[in-house]
Amino acid sequence: MEANNKTIKSLAVMCSGGDSPGMNSAVRSVVRTAIGLGIEVYGIYKGYSGLLEGNIHKLSLSSVGNIIQRGGTILDTSRCLEFHTPQIRQEAAHILARKHIEGLVVIGGNGSFAGAMTLHKEHDIPVIGIPGTIDNDISGTEYTIGFNTAVQTAVNAVDNIRDTASAHARTFLVEVMGRRSSFIALQVGICTGAEHVVLSNQTVDYEKIVDGINKGNERGKTSSIIIVAEGEKAGLSYEIKDTLMKKYNLSVHACILGHIQRGGSPTATDRFIASKMGYAAVQALHQGLRAHVTAFNKGEIEMVPLSACLEGKNESNDAQIELIRALAI
Amino acid sequence: MEANNKTIKSLAVMCSGGDSPGMNSAVRSVVRTAIGLGIEVYGIYKGYSGLLEGNIHKLSLSSVGNIIQRGGTILDTSRCLEFHTPQIRQEAAHILARKHIEGLVVIGGNGSFAGAMTLHKEHDIPVIGIPGTIDNDISGTEYTIGFNTAVQTAVNAVDNIRDTASAHARTFLVEVMGRRSSFIALQVGICTGAEHVVLSNQTVDYEKIVDGINKGNERGKTSSIIIVAEGEKAGLSYEIKDTLMKKYNLSVHACILGHIQRGGSPTATDRFIASKMGYAAVQALHQGLRAHVTAFNKGEIEMVPLSACLEGKNESNDAQIELIRALAI
Amino acid sequence: MEANNKTIKSLAVMCSGGDSPGMNSAVRSVVRTAIGLGIEVYGIYKGYSGLLEGNIHKLSLSSVGNIIQRGGTILDTSRCLEFHTPQIRQEAAHILARKHIEGLVVIGGNGSFAGAMTLHKEHDIPVIGIPGTIDNDISGTEYTIGFNTAVQTAVNAVDNIRDTASAHARTFLVEVMGRRSSFIALQVGICTGAEHVVLSNQTVDYEKIVDGINKGNERGKTSSIIIVAEGEKAGLSYEIKDTLMKKYNLSVHACILGHIQRGGSPTATDRFIASKMGYAAVQALHQGLRAHVTAFNKGEIEMVPLSACLEGKNESNDAQIELIRALAI
Amino acid sequence: MEANNKTIKSLAVMCSGGDSPGMNSAVRSVVRTAIGLGIEVYGIYKGYSGLLEGNIHKLSLSSVGNIIQRGGTILDTSRCLEFHTPQIRQEAAHILARKHIEGLVVIGGNGSFAGAMTLHKEHDIPVIGIPGTIDNDISGTEYTIGFNTAVQTAVNAVDNIRDTASAHARTFLVEVMGRRSSFIALQVGICTGAEHVVLSNQTVDYEKIVDGINKGNERGKTSSIIIVAEGEKAGLSYEIKDTLMKKYNLSVHACILGHIQRGGSPTATDRFIASKMGYAAVQALHQGLRAHVTAFNKGEIEMVPLSACLEGKNESNDAQIELIRALAI
Repeated sequence: MEANNKTIKSLAVMCSGGDSPGMNSAVRSVVRTAIGLGIEVYGIYKGYSGLLEGNIHKLSLSSVGNIIQRGGTILDTSRCLEFHTPQIRQEAAHILARKHIEGLVVIGGNGSFAGAMTLHKEHDIPVIGIPGTIDNDISGTEYTIGFNTAVQTAVNAVDNIRDTASAHARTFLVEVMGRRSSFIALQVGICTGAEHVVLSNQTVDYEKIVDGINKGNERGKTSSIIIVAEGEKAGLSYEIKDTLMKKYNLSVHACILGHIQRGGSPTATDRFIASKMGYAAVQALHQGLRAHVTAFNKGEIEMVPLSACLEGKNESNDAQIELIRALAI
Repeated sequence: MEANNKTIKSLAVMCSGGDSPGMNSAVRSVVRTAIGLGIEVYGIYKGYSGLLEGNIHKLSLSSVGNIIQRGGTILDTSRCLEFHTPQIRQEAAHILARKHIEGLVVIGGNGSFAGAMTLHKEHDIPVIGIPGTIDNDISGTEYTIGFNTAVQTAVNAVDNIRDTASAHARTFLVEVMGRRSSFIALQVGICTGAEHVVLSNQTVDYEKIVDGINKGNERGKTSSIIIVAEGEKAGLSYEIKDTLMKKYNLSVHACILGHIQRGGSPTATDRFIASKMGYAAVQALHQGLRAHVTAFNKGEIEMVPLSACLEGKNESNDAQIELIRALAI
Repeated sequence: MEANNKTIKSLAVMCSGGDSPGMNSAVRSVVRTAIGLGIEVYGIYKGYSGLLEGNIHKLSLSSVGNIIQRGGTILDTSRCLEFHTPQIRQEAAHILARKHIEGLVVIGGNGSFAGAMTLHKEHDIPVIGIPGTIDNDISGTEYTIGFNTAVQTAVNAVDNIRDTASAHARTFLVEVMGRRSSFIALQVGICTGAEHVVLSNQTVDYEKIVDGINKGNERGKTSSIIIVAEGEKAGLSYEIKDTLMKKYNLSVHACILGHIQRGGSPTATDRFIASKMGYAAVQALHQGLRAHVTAFNKGEIEMVPLSACLEGKNESNDAQIELIRALAI
Repeated sequence: MEANNKTIKSLAVMCSGGDSPGMNSAVRSVVRTAIGLGIEVYGIYKGYSGLLEGNIHKLSLSSVGNIIQRGGTILDTSRCLEFHTPQIRQEAAHILARKHIEGLVVIGGNGSFAGAMTLHKEHDIPVIGIPGTIDNDISGTEYTIGFNTAVQTAVNAVDNIRDTASAHARTFLVEVMGRRSSFIALQVGICTGAEHVVLSNQTVDYEKIVDGINKGNERGKTSSIIIVAEGEKAGLSYEIKDTLMKKYNLSVHACILGHIQRGGSPTATDRFIASKMGYAAVQALHQGLRAHVTAFNKGEIEMVPLSACLEGKNESNDAQIELIRALAI
């Protein structure tokens, strides 16, 4: 690691992009670790937009009291397209300099990391990324904060739907979040004993779905749950429902779980990993790292170069697909 | 009460129409109370359809072990249109007679009660209705089993959505169940501090919605939650969203909570009232009542004539509307 | 009602005694209703102790933003013994007068109401009580805020314990809160299908408990749950456990649920009733009522004289005891 | 791996020792994977005691329908001391042979694994262990099924207690399970922002606890949560409470969370890992492994020799202790 021992005297922390449960746990951990090390800590509110507006306030221990268990983020967040222009980033660098902020912790997804990377390259500002998105779709890290809570919320929802599916002998399509990745869909599928999972990056295999429902019926099974990864935009499950009804004459119901998956009190897992990442992020700045991410790989926090985390990840997870196939017989 | 002291020796219990959380608690209570009184008790599976197929099995204490906390219904349920013809009902009466079943407990909504009423009139079978539907839309009773659980599930979901709405400064439309009635919508609106509730039986007042959002913005409020009662069929919230975007240039998100509201472990309230109603239903048959409903009025179980519970109820609840208005300033 | 139409210009709201879930929903409702009526509203922090210290701050709409779903109370609370002396109450009246506070809303139990009553009598300050305690033990009202949440929390806990009891074929004693009253114990017993409930105001009937366990065993039942009302102080379940082991040679486990029952996000029911009571309390002061309580009787809010709510209630609930007996066969 | 390609035609699965949430998910996965591979599968009920009694039944797909989300175990479990004698194990081997059971999957802790190891050594029966205990205290694996659910349940409980601690400005000692290990205590401490964690294998450092409470008070902090690992037997928190009151004149409350931590619906994490482990166990037997454990290390399932998993693990986790110290300032 290209460590640099000139330690910093102040840092700022911000959330950017979609909110995810556990962001507050991470913010709390950043603030407390920094104060413990004698580093001043500022909160930038509303992401890069707030940075440009100077919406920056000093944080104390009590600023982060009683937030570890809260969904959303006390720092608010936003998606900021303007940040793509160099003049705008120049301005941001000036604002940070005027506040004597010597390091930046950015909690968000790969888009937010890309902004941080450019700011770092152009203005030599040390930045540490904390991966925070429910989609778990950042390369370079096996885990992103919020994923476990989103999966848990979706699993609870499917448990509820299963009650009605069983009582009425029905088939339900349940659409979960995840944008271009299928991580939520696969894990929810396994955890709810779903009969099938429609992945986000593939054409829908209607024959397979219909075959599965029919075979289940022959065996006396009367209800089925099919998990649908949302893909680029929500609504795929309605399309599938229409096709199953019109082309295959099957009666199915569709539910889009939607934004309930983004909120809620973070699970223990998300609080735990977020707390560790917040701590690691400040330690990294303190020790002179300049453009890294607090990745979570092989069961542990690992500092990886920010440059390795700028892409989305979308690998097909063959082991999980095989597990669903094996258990859905 | 037209009581008739010739007590019964056996009864059957069934669920009919949409399932609702707490039905299992009621079934358990019916079975245990009956066995305690020395009455044989049968379960009719899959509602009136199951009755016609003779899908009827004797229940014991262990049949209802460990079900008080389960969503759905172990008896399964269905909607049965055939039951509207007299010959079909004649057949049902024969099937009950052949099994020596002398009384019927029907857990369901007003459609299911109508079937029970006709069966009673035509074939003199004693029937007791237990109001069970998440919609709380049966006349003659202030409460129906499942309503409290559905409200709680929707409240939890809106709490989650509020996290994201706050973090991103957004307006969300959240559509809840309730068919033609607005009971769920109103109670969820009050319990989540919603800014507005769109009732099911009224034209959407866009000026009021837009005005509310704008006034909130002026006061520095950045997020709003608007609860939408689904009306005849799900999807109204998408219509409202489109209108707000196209006609008023407002950016809003819409979520349809859907079937998660029907399932899940019943709340303490639903288990409590269902247990009481199951007990009251068997006591009523035991004491010779012949066509009554275990209503819940003024905080207590009250036996009301089945004939008073055959209509849907949809009264506008002015006190609740006023409360939402007062608190949403 | 001795109404008096000279309306008030400002009021204060406080919590007193043990905290209960839903207090925040009530505070929010008081504040918003008052502001909507043009009444200034102050928060008194830490109960009567805080009043004496002048720990009183003006509240705005944003003071109560996003608190409807929070456990505990943002106003904090305390038990204040000093308030029993007249000089101290004189001082309290002066403090209120100096702040031009013309009415007081006290959220708490009957001890807190007694303090409010004396303050009213001695200094002619209009006071409205909102019943808030998990124990549901205030006379004059069938419901107190927090009871439903406490019951739900205890029910969830017993559901968990039932899993282990069943898996291991064991008997568990589960002790719930409620001080001198057995309301929580009875409702939890019914909602969890408990085999027996030990009431708080009675000698423990060991023969009955042992008989129940033995009869269950004969029928092939291997696990039992016995709910114990805590009585004057926690620990009765340990006593019962020791006696069952030493005198009857029965192996049982004991769990004291304790303070988890006081906290947590209020249920929909508690938020709903608390919101209604907060609204009713302010309307009552606005309309000139001077010493009343927002009681909840026969399913509705009802203003009853404060003097009717100063005692604890502890009636034995025969109907519920009979229901447990009937269902626990 | 000493693989042996003679595949098996039938296997049995059992739970042993304390139950833990996720055992049912593992049983379901074992059964479905086996049936998918054409292997007959039997359930042994009530652990080793049930094996000795021949309490063994063939399982089908429908035997494990709708159990993935259930706490406890449908196979029941027990602790069986008799199994320590060779004659008894001889008998067990005969019973398995008579049923033509060629492989055994044992879900439990290290005590249960020791029984399985001896049975394997003495009678050459292929055995695969699935680590299942809430305590996470088995050597050779970083994770055991049930740990995540137990932590989550305890975290939810402490969140509730925090509400009251804050509202009343109090210190609470909360005792969590874990026997001789502190894994639950440490993770709960981090996830709830506890002020201090008392580890199970160390003398209580009263000076440090008192110092922490006093420093917090000086900084205006009014409530504290101290997590206590239970140690050999429950009750340590009452001892600490008494000492803090008598020797240091501090007012504290103590709660023992107890058996609520063993039950409840398994979290998504536990369902996911349990499903993977069940699948891996059957694949291992199918591929000829003879005495292994489905360990979870570095984020993945890994087959490790059973001999490496017979000890308890109790390493002090310095990184977690440091994290708590850093965040509890």
